Amino acid sequence: MSEPTNNNANSSEQASVSEFNTSRRILMGPGPSDVHPRVLKAMSTPLIGHLDPEFLMIMDDIKKMVQRCFQTKNDLTFVVSAPGSAGMETSLVNLLEPGDEALICIHGVFGNRLADVAERCGATVIKVESPWGESIDPNQVKDALQKCSPKIVAIVHAETSTGVLQPLDEIGKMTRDAGALFVVDAVTSFCGTELKVDEWGIDAIYSGSQKCLSAPPGLSPVSFSDRAVHAMEQRKTKVQSWFLDLSMVRNYWSGAKRAYHHTAPVSAMFAMREALRIVLEEGLENRFERHWTNHYLLMEGIEELGFKMLVKEGFRLPMLNSVLLPEGLDEASIRSILLNEYDIEVGAGLGALAGKIWRIGLMGESSSPNHINMLLSALKEITNR
Amino acid sequence: MSEPTNNNANSSEQASVSEFNTSRRILMGPGPSDVHPRVLKAMSTPLIGHLDPEFLMIMDDIKKMVQRCFQTKNDLTFVVSAPGSAGMETSLVNLLEPGDEALICIHGVFGNRLADVAERCGATVIKVESPWGESIDPNQVKDALQKCSPKIVAIVHAETSTGVLQPLDEIGKMTRDAGALFVVDAVTSFCGTELKVDEWGIDAIYSGSQKCLSAPPGLSPVSFSDRAVHAMEQRKTKVQSWFLDLSMVRNYWSGAKRAYHHTAPVSAMFAMREALRIVLEEGLENRFERHWTNHYLLMEGIEELGFKMLVKEGFRLPMLNSVLLPEGLDEASIRSILLNEYDIEVGAGLGALAGKIWRIGLMGESSSPNHINMLLSALKEITNR
Repeated sequence: MSEPTNNNANSSEQASVSEFNTSRRILMGPGPSDVHPRVLKAMSTPLIGHLDPEFLMIMDDIKKMVQRCFQTKNDLTFVVSAPGSAGMETSLVNLLEPGDEALICIHGVFGNRLADVAERCGATVIKVESPWGESIDPNQVKDALQKCSPKIVAIVHAETSTGVLQPLDEIGKMTRDAGALFVVDAVTSFCGTELKVDEWGIDAIYSGSQKCLSAPPGLSPVSFSDRAVHAMEQRKTKVQSWFLDLSMVRNYWSGAKRAYHHTAPVSAMFAMREALRIVLEEGLENRFERHWTNHYLLMEGIEELGFKMLVKEGFRLPMLNSVLLPEGLDEASIRSILLNEYDIEVGAGLGALAGKIWRIGLMGESSSPNHINMLLSALKEITNR
Repeated sequence: MSEPTNNNANSSEQASVSEFNTSRRILMGPGPSDVHPRVLKAMSTPLIGHLDPEFLMIMDDIKKMVQRCFQTKNDLTFVVSAPGSAGMETSLVNLLEPGDEALICIHGVFGNRLADVAERCGATVIKVESPWGESIDPNQVKDALQKCSPKIVAIVHAETSTGVLQPLDEIGKMTRDAGALFVVDAVTSFCGTELKVDEWGIDAIYSGSQKCLSAPPGLSPVSFSDRAVHAMEQRKTKVQSWFLDLSMVRNYWSGAKRAYHHTAPVSAMFAMREALRIVLEEGLENRFERHWTNHYLLMEGIEELGFKMLVKEGFRLPMLNSVLLPEGLDEASIRSILLNEYDIEVGAGLGALAGKIWRIGLMGESSSPNHINMLLSALKEITNR
């Protein structure tokens, strides 16, 4: 017998990276959240082309369902082929031109990011700020609007870094009265709490796939009002990003021609479609109610353990709970025990709140009594050691 | 018996979008290509967090394997969380500042795209052009370099719109001699034909996940030389894109802190890791040889059917074959029969070549004798009707 030969392998390159085996994590951080097996299964469907008529139909379905979840009739509603941060950038680069004024409300990391992106667009940024952990007072916006004429007013609906739910309706109305466009970050609120794009007068909104929608991270559902589209059409300069230029992207998502722009992330869109179906099967109102119910359940249990909520009542996010640990507990080491011994991920603080708080996510598939029971039981065991 | 009630569904929202059922396509267009079941399986692994130590190890593995596939030791080698077009934009927005000169070689759609992106960076673009279907003559670049002092020279290695393989070594040497940075589009060539980033003096290179690597579309492997990194560090202005700003992104991919920048597309990275493993198990040289062997096999068969190669010998891509159809055949209707009756996707022409050619992809998992036999047999049946 001769030795088996292997023409298909270069021995020096082979076998140095083995198959990966991840732990079975319970995702209770600020995203990604747990993904339903139906979504994983849909994502693993063998591929079809990004211009295949069957794929264009899938895009149409996605668009329709995103419209329903945003509660909007906006025609320019679609999914950006990149994570939520790229959705933010899509909103700003298409609306802002050098020299435009942008009023940016900042009450956490993502408000700061909005300001940074707007500055990179060449806009003059006027900031309205609140302490982290608090919301923006509409009167602050009112005052600021008397001293400038911004093209946009931008604000974060659910500030993922602090756990604050920002009321939008009043600021939306002021923005419209001032003739500006209202830009909203809904990365964490989308599909988790009430969000009425048309009713609240929102002109540009973006979210992420991996939070209350519970699809894998990597995509950003967005929507733009006719006013926003009109503003884009009046631009004097080209959008600085080719990849995010909606004057081209929109021709791939709608219209008769469905013109190639970039190769869409086909598998991620399969997952997105299934995650949206699950949301609509549950029903938006039911889903919001579930997020609130579980928020109260967690709060009750975790306050009993000596944790304190960072945000004052009435402004707390149902899906992302910012908590201060009991005195004497080292947040990093307990977070590490949770992950390594219990496979439970909770989020650390970001920016000014790093080392000071935890961010406990109850988002989408991770918003369930079982998740809460696992976490609370593990915490009891750890703190009683 | 009482009626079953369903508290979890809002009947007006329910059931209007059914489960999707895609056809079992054979992908022989310009990408995406067929994806190996191992990759689909890896992708459907339940999620872990994007800052989980286990995920950081997966990123490290990916980085190492991308380095090997690019044949580079570049430390700044990673995967952009968006499709190849965003990889192109990453390369240009980080290297160019307003007022810089950029020499862009154009011999198809993607050269034009490079010029468009460079202009949006505020660069002064000098174009060197060849007719579509031909390569750029190094002498053209030589002449152009005598009349300008560009910061970058950018060129497409495998022009996906025409099927031309562009020789790079000579132009790379000229670029370096001129003190410029050499930027290469390897979206279609990566993992399909010889590509030596370090040996050829390439300073910035980007690819896509969905062509010869055969992972799902949506990610872009990139690599930057130390010279490119130095140029980035000397910038006077901020990178215009926040999402693609490597001064931040690189701290997520390497360094002690692994700082959060954006939420990485976890599932897509699982797929990327498995696809890279498959490439290295086969071995780069074996993989390149397979692509060439199957290219010749297709060519022989398709020329017998009266098709003609668009590109002259010596400049043809092994993985993307541009063919002119026999006289009298309507390209669109035959392409449609192939898709609808045989489930085989081939690509249409793009830009100036729309309606004139087909682009037949033999990329990654789609580069096999079985694929070629399926296509040729179907074409025989259709043209003999």
